[in-house]
Amino acid sequence: MTVTVAVDAMGGDHGPQVTVPATLAFLEATPGARAILVGLPDPLAQALARARSKASDRVSVHACTEVVAMNEPPADALRRKKDSSLRVAINLVKEGQAQACVSAGNTGALMAIARFVLKTLPGIDRPAIASQLPTRTGVTTALDLGANVNCTPEQLVQFAVMGSALVTAVDGIERPTVGLLNIGEEDIKGNDVVKQAAELLKASPLNFFGNVEGDDLYKGTTDVVVCDGFVGNVALKASEGLVVMLYDFLRAEFTRNPLRRVAAAAAWPALLAFKKRVDPRRYNGATLVGLKGVVVKSHGGADALGFQHALVKAHAEVVNGVLDKIAHEVAAMPAPVPAPAAAE
Amino acid sequence: MTVTVAVDAMGGDHGPQVTVPATLAFLEATPGARAILVGLPDPLAQALARARSKASDRVSVHACTEVVAMNEPPADALRRKKDSSLRVAINLVKEGQAQACVSAGNTGALMAIARFVLKTLPGIDRPAIASQLPTRTGVTTALDLGANVNCTPEQLVQFAVMGSALVTAVDGIERPTVGLLNIGEEDIKGNDVVKQAAELLKASPLNFFGNVEGDDLYKGTTDVVVCDGFVGNVALKASEGLVVMLYDFLRAEFTRNPLRRVAAAAAWPALLAFKKRVDPRRYNGATLVGLKGVVVKSHGGADALGFQHALVKAHAEVVNGVLDKIAHEVAAMPAPVPAPAAAE
Repeated sequence: MTVTVAVDAMGGDHGPQVTVPATLAFLEATPGARAILVGLPDPLAQALARARSKASDRVSVHACTEVVAMNEPPADALRRKKDSSLRVAINLVKEGQAQACVSAGNTGALMAIARFVLKTLPGIDRPAIASQLPTRTGVTTALDLGANVNCTPEQLVQFAVMGSALVTAVDGIERPTVGLLNIGEEDIKGNDVVKQAAELLKASPLNFFGNVEGDDLYKGTTDVVVCDGFVGNVALKASEGLVVMLYDFLRAEFTRNPLRRVAAAAAWPALLAFKKRVDPRRYNGATLVGLKGVVVKSHGGADALGFQHALVKAHAEVVNGVLDKIAHEVAAMPAPVPAPAAAE
Repeated sequence: MTVTVAVDAMGGDHGPQVTVPATLAFLEATPGARAILVGLPDPLAQALARARSKASDRVSVHACTEVVAMNEPPADALRRKKDSSLRVAINLVKEGQAQACVSAGNTGALMAIARFVLKTLPGIDRPAIASQLPTRTGVTTALDLGANVNCTPEQLVQFAVMGSALVTAVDGIERPTVGLLNIGEEDIKGNDVVKQAAELLKASPLNFFGNVEGDDLYKGTTDVVVCDGFVGNVALKASEGLVVMLYDFLRAEFTRNPLRRVAAAAAWPALLAFKKRVDPRRYNGATLVGLKGVVVKSHGGADALGFQHALVKAHAEVVNGVLDKIAHEVAAMPAPVPAPAAAE
């Protein structure tokens, strides 16, 4: 099976400067894969001219005339920019010319356009953003990380179903454990939405662990952690900010004086190994689950290595048949998950 | 002015084993301060017998007959345990025998009992939990960190007023900047509560910066960050979990083989300085703001150094007249902050 990935080459803080070399590096490491770079012809041609790759015969260019700005309101991007690199890349998935789309662009616009063009799977109200976080024992898949700010209990259950299916398909874990993010382990804790979601999850065929707390995200207590997009987004960004701060402090301490610099040289292998282990680029690539198509969002500020990881993730999801597995799991839920009257 | 701190000596995971030596160390470092240890006579006497301190003449014991368990439902603790160490310590503040109370016990019970016994300041619906987080440039005071899971926009404004007054009183910052925790900087982002709170904050005399995101907590973008207790609690605990994981990874890399252990010895001063800089014990002690009394909550698992920091915080708040300043700021709000019909 040849997998073709449509790349929104204009998205992100750096555009083709990052997306083009990352795509070529991905293709070199993934024999048989193909990529379609979607973007404005001139910057794309320039970036391609600078890059020399033996994989260049597996990349093609699809020209477009518009770009969605990083801070553009999603509704505007959806209504007005019909020929944006972001939208055309998603169209290629819809038309079957590509099996997955990767973008480092405007998250809100990506979600809105993907939902409009690809539609959600039957039984799913709204897609969610899922991502893997490193833990003390492996990884945890957390969702939603920012797509839905007001979730119903039923939507949280849908996230749990999708997250479980994603983990089963990609990581090969049968019946992954599911935790519900809360502010205490006891049933009495939390708000009404979380309490009702816990009841629904207990009654579901999922492998529901129970409530988990913020620190369980990094303890690896469960394979999947479910939360609403507001909470998930804040937790994710707080973590990113904390890692940056800790790196800064570590760097400051190891460069404080000449003696410390010597120590840093001695400690370099350990520090490098540490840094590599928690390198956010290794975890780059959030999946928009619940759509009739594979869409992966890269961090806007990702460099080529980070963007390459997002491409690898999209490719793996296609190869592992994630879409079919999620659709199957959603359909297999005993009582069809009810569509709430007013989701947001 | 002699400040007397009432100590719930039975609270926390370790009880008098931690609270007694911590109290004595606090008194030794704080000339003139006094403490009342509230607890069961036997374990208290044992812990005091083990400790020898030249400050022991400034500590007295107040016997009680009950202890609130760490996992006890707050309503039960409030209704049934009238002679618990936690409640008696708060009573001492109410009666004026102490000017502040410190407990490492059950957070929900502490909040419920403190609110029942001490009452909230005029204009404040519900107290909030405020704590300082380290940032790249100093500290940020964040609230609410877990007391209120469903907040109205008006409550978020009250948190902002209290947080501002706290920072002014303790850190001496006039007109501290206030950020509203959200999932994007743009006005259109977030849920309805946050959007309405932003409008109220813009119209208020506070130094409102605007929306901030999770990573701003550690960037030190604003002096105060306001959020509902669910989001704040998850962000705080996720941060705690992440720090523990990163320490683990760092330790693992520096002990991986004999060569790495030698490197660790060379790097020790830098690693120690790093660890000290982000030592959670230095930031231990969350303030229950909005009450007619100073109440500080220590982390349940805190050791003696951590608990001592909570005592120092309580003492500083009394010395700096935090209560009066918060009451003054709340009263000075031009339009009285309306009390919502149903808070929780």
